[in-house]
Amino acid sequence: MYRVDLNSDLGESFGQYTLGMDDKIIPLISSANVACGYHASDPVVMEKTVAMAKEAGIQVGAHPGFPDLMGFGRRNMNVTPKEAKAYVVYQLGALDGFCRAKGIRIRHVKPHGALYNMAAKDYHLSKAICEGIREYDPKLIVLALSGGQLAKAAMDLGLPTALEVFADRGYEEDGTLVDRRKEGAMITDEDQAISRVVRMVKEKKVTAVTGKDISIQADSVCVHGDGAKALAFVAKIRQAFEKEGIQLTPLAGMNL
Amino acid sequence: MYRVDLNSDLGESFGQYTLGMDDKIIPLISSANVACGYHASDPVVMEKTVAMAKEAGIQVGAHPGFPDLMGFGRRNMNVTPKEAKAYVVYQLGALDGFCRAKGIRIRHVKPHGALYNMAAKDYHLSKAICEGIREYDPKLIVLALSGGQLAKAAMDLGLPTALEVFADRGYEEDGTLVDRRKEGAMITDEDQAISRVVRMVKEKKVTAVTGKDISIQADSVCVHGDGAKALAFVAKIRQAFEKEGIQLTPLAGMNL
Amino acid sequence: MYRVDLNSDLGESFGQYTLGMDDKIIPLISSANVACGYHASDPVVMEKTVAMAKEAGIQVGAHPGFPDLMGFGRRNMNVTPKEAKAYVVYQLGALDGFCRAKGIRIRHVKPHGALYNMAAKDYHLSKAICEGIREYDPKLIVLALSGGQLAKAAMDLGLPTALEVFADRGYEEDGTLVDRRKEGAMITDEDQAISRVVRMVKEKKVTAVTGKDISIQADSVCVHGDGAKALAFVAKIRQAFEKEGIQLTPLAGMNL
Amino acid sequence: MYRVDLNSDLGESFGQYTLGMDDKIIPLISSANVACGYHASDPVVMEKTVAMAKEAGIQVGAHPGFPDLMGFGRRNMNVTPKEAKAYVVYQLGALDGFCRAKGIRIRHVKPHGALYNMAAKDYHLSKAICEGIREYDPKLIVLALSGGQLAKAAMDLGLPTALEVFADRGYEEDGTLVDRRKEGAMITDEDQAISRVVRMVKEKKVTAVTGKDISIQADSVCVHGDGAKALAFVAKIRQAFEKEGIQLTPLAGMNL
Repeated sequence: MYRVDLNSDLGESFGQYTLGMDDKIIPLISSANVACGYHASDPVVMEKTVAMAKEAGIQVGAHPGFPDLMGFGRRNMNVTPKEAKAYVVYQLGALDGFCRAKGIRIRHVKPHGALYNMAAKDYHLSKAICEGIREYDPKLIVLALSGGQLAKAAMDLGLPTALEVFADRGYEEDGTLVDRRKEGAMITDEDQAISRVVRMVKEKKVTAVTGKDISIQADSVCVHGDGAKALAFVAKIRQAFEKEGIQLTPLAGMNL
Repeated sequence: MYRVDLNSDLGESFGQYTLGMDDKIIPLISSANVACGYHASDPVVMEKTVAMAKEAGIQVGAHPGFPDLMGFGRRNMNVTPKEAKAYVVYQLGALDGFCRAKGIRIRHVKPHGALYNMAAKDYHLSKAICEGIREYDPKLIVLALSGGQLAKAAMDLGLPTALEVFADRGYEEDGTLVDRRKEGAMITDEDQAISRVVRMVKEKKVTAVTGKDISIQADSVCVHGDGAKALAFVAKIRQAFEKEGIQLTPLAGMNL
Repeated sequence: MYRVDLNSDLGESFGQYTLGMDDKIIPLISSANVACGYHASDPVVMEKTVAMAKEAGIQVGAHPGFPDLMGFGRRNMNVTPKEAKAYVVYQLGALDGFCRAKGIRIRHVKPHGALYNMAAKDYHLSKAICEGIREYDPKLIVLALSGGQLAKAAMDLGLPTALEVFADRGYEEDGTLVDRRKEGAMITDEDQAISRVVRMVKEKKVTAVTGKDISIQADSVCVHGDGAKALAFVAKIRQAFEKEGIQLTPLAGMNL
Repeated sequence: MYRVDLNSDLGESFGQYTLGMDDKIIPLISSANVACGYHASDPVVMEKTVAMAKEAGIQVGAHPGFPDLMGFGRRNMNVTPKEAKAYVVYQLGALDGFCRAKGIRIRHVKPHGALYNMAAKDYHLSKAICEGIREYDPKLIVLALSGGQLAKAAMDLGLPTALEVFADRGYEEDGTLVDRRKEGAMITDEDQAISRVVRMVKEKKVTAVTGKDISIQADSVCVHGDGAKALAFVAKIRQAFEKEGIQLTPLAGMNL
């Protein structure tokens, strides 16, 4: 039987500001990456988000980011590895605090935005992030870009590692994402996007932007819950999974 | 045998800014209240502070404050009980993250500055703080002003509670601190301050500002490490304890 | 001829977060109170908001608040008068920077949220705020609650002062707003709210919650742009003004 | 007659945290670059710093930085040009607010830390910064690294531009600073450092790290006030200037 996880970024509201449609996307996914108060969220939002995720029975993971609320953690910051490690431990502990208060635990970690993108390309940064994760809890699953440096560092450090793919993105022959500024970066046709994901899960293959088939591992697919169109796409991808005999499985239920 | 804890606020540096003489005060105390990144500190400072405290073998506690770095958490903020509770859980989890990464755990909680002062007078706020502590970990010791509302709420909720006294402050007949704007608020004579503390520990009594003896419980004495004079006072109080047969004991070693 | 200003709080978005319907409310009002980056907004939002207001030809004023983004400036903070003054000067200068860059100037100041409410009741705080305004530019108009301490301090310091009324709030006999927790605090009937405002402008009178008519001065009415219902109400109040011969006039066009 | 400015970064304290020895360095310099609340400082510190600079009669300039208090503005952030421009206008306005309140005005702008370093290498970023400065006030002097892109953009946009040199740094043949990781980056001998500066001012020449003499323009020398050694060096450089007939002149007194 085939298994895959659907993950989505949640809990990104802050104070008076609301972002995302968490209550709509939660019933459709198996794993939630919950913001930890650095690039988004605040303690009241975190408590509520963890409560909603627990209620729905989905897996909670930490979504640590840069301390850049103004830029939503989407701007590269050249922090030192030491800083990156400490920022990750801080955010893991903070979010896990709300989990522990509700009798659950965080089960995975997926860096957010610029931290995710920088880590995918920078082994040293990734190693620091993974050292923070391992020191905090070596059983935490690292959710990382398939083919990137974070995945490599996580495996090197012996952490359970789940590989993430994107339905709407093109891939280079080396397994990295096509740069957003280049042609072929985005897969805009929904049916094509879905059949690509199905193939990644079942055949462990995807057609690169060059036309060549490459190997890829898809433990989890990242989906968005920030609009009616995004939600409809998630419903559609779930239907395809059902039809194709692919079972939705949270990361902790896989043999990583 | 008599026992008492000496506690001090540590880890209040932030980024490029240094505050306090943590390396000097750590060898002199039994419990450290470590700032958690809201009113002071950052993840790099927290990691370092926890490492120093572990190395010295002293007890680590959380020192959560208001999200007011600019005011160092010393300004009252009329947060809701729900917000106060969430802020406490966030900070407990974050600091404990660094402890867990080093194989230890936070053992007590002492609110900082304005949160401490407001809680001492406001049972509802104190109850919210204590609910956050209990949900996070019901074995955590609440370090609260002797005679204040936080101590009352902590006991009502069944949390282990340690009562804090101040060597350099006067007391009213009802056991509360003399308002700083009133005469008798400060005990400026060091010998008098020390003999008052010794009496609080051994006889469970102190002379109130009115001249009347009142009952008081002293589980822990708050000391400061922010200057040569403060450090000398701590050394002096330790000598007095030794001479008087009072054993320095971290809170977790008491029968609270 | 009768004149009145319609003011609204604008520019409260922040980074990735959007709040309010600024483009919809701007054509309906005569004065905008623009957030200055403390309780809400960021420099990119401020630049855009000032540009929109200039384009529409409405008056720009500063809307300084507490440094409490997480609480949207709605939580009382017991800052010192010295701090309040400095916070106001900082925010006036920052917002005026964007105005100067576009060849206009801020013309009025209305404190936000908790700072507005605290100032209305605290003459010392109000005096500090007004000293900051006067030192920055003594021609700036202070927009203050009719009957409150900020209005009093502004007049005492010789600053042009505009008095603000609320269409949807009940008044006590002394001219202060009925506490939101008491009956009669809110005027929920729209027609009644509008006729009360029209009477305030034309007759300088309003019926207090006790049933007694009291004197009131209404230079400006605060309206909201955060929803379809709020926008419809503003359109309705504008129609009533037109019918009643009340001319919409920005504060700087009045003889304050 | 030869003229040169001595500039130093001031006003970098924040809340409870003190940094630098502003009162000691102010009497020794001609221009102060004052932090604006993003990478350091707060409104109370800004008010005090502007007051001290005015009292001493030295020139006040803005020292805008990245919104990264935790990193003291020393970490590269890949902000957009639009963001950089808005951040600069915000900080110019805010600092100038305190100047206007005291009857003076900011006269120059020197970006801080990572913003300074990134701008020196990135013409697009520099252009955005300079557009913000020009829109705010086209008479403001841009204080930029001699030979860098910020100086080029400032001149291209017609802004008065002052070129800054460093006494303690080595230069490459193209006029850029030797990378701190390379040999020859630092000039550690004080007498050599001073004679190099004197030669830059009088002969407009300096010996590059390669041994070759290159042309350089030195309108201002950056000095530090963060310790006894730094202060002694400033006194020494002032003595050398006096002996060599070089007159200390604030930037606004030069013909830029």
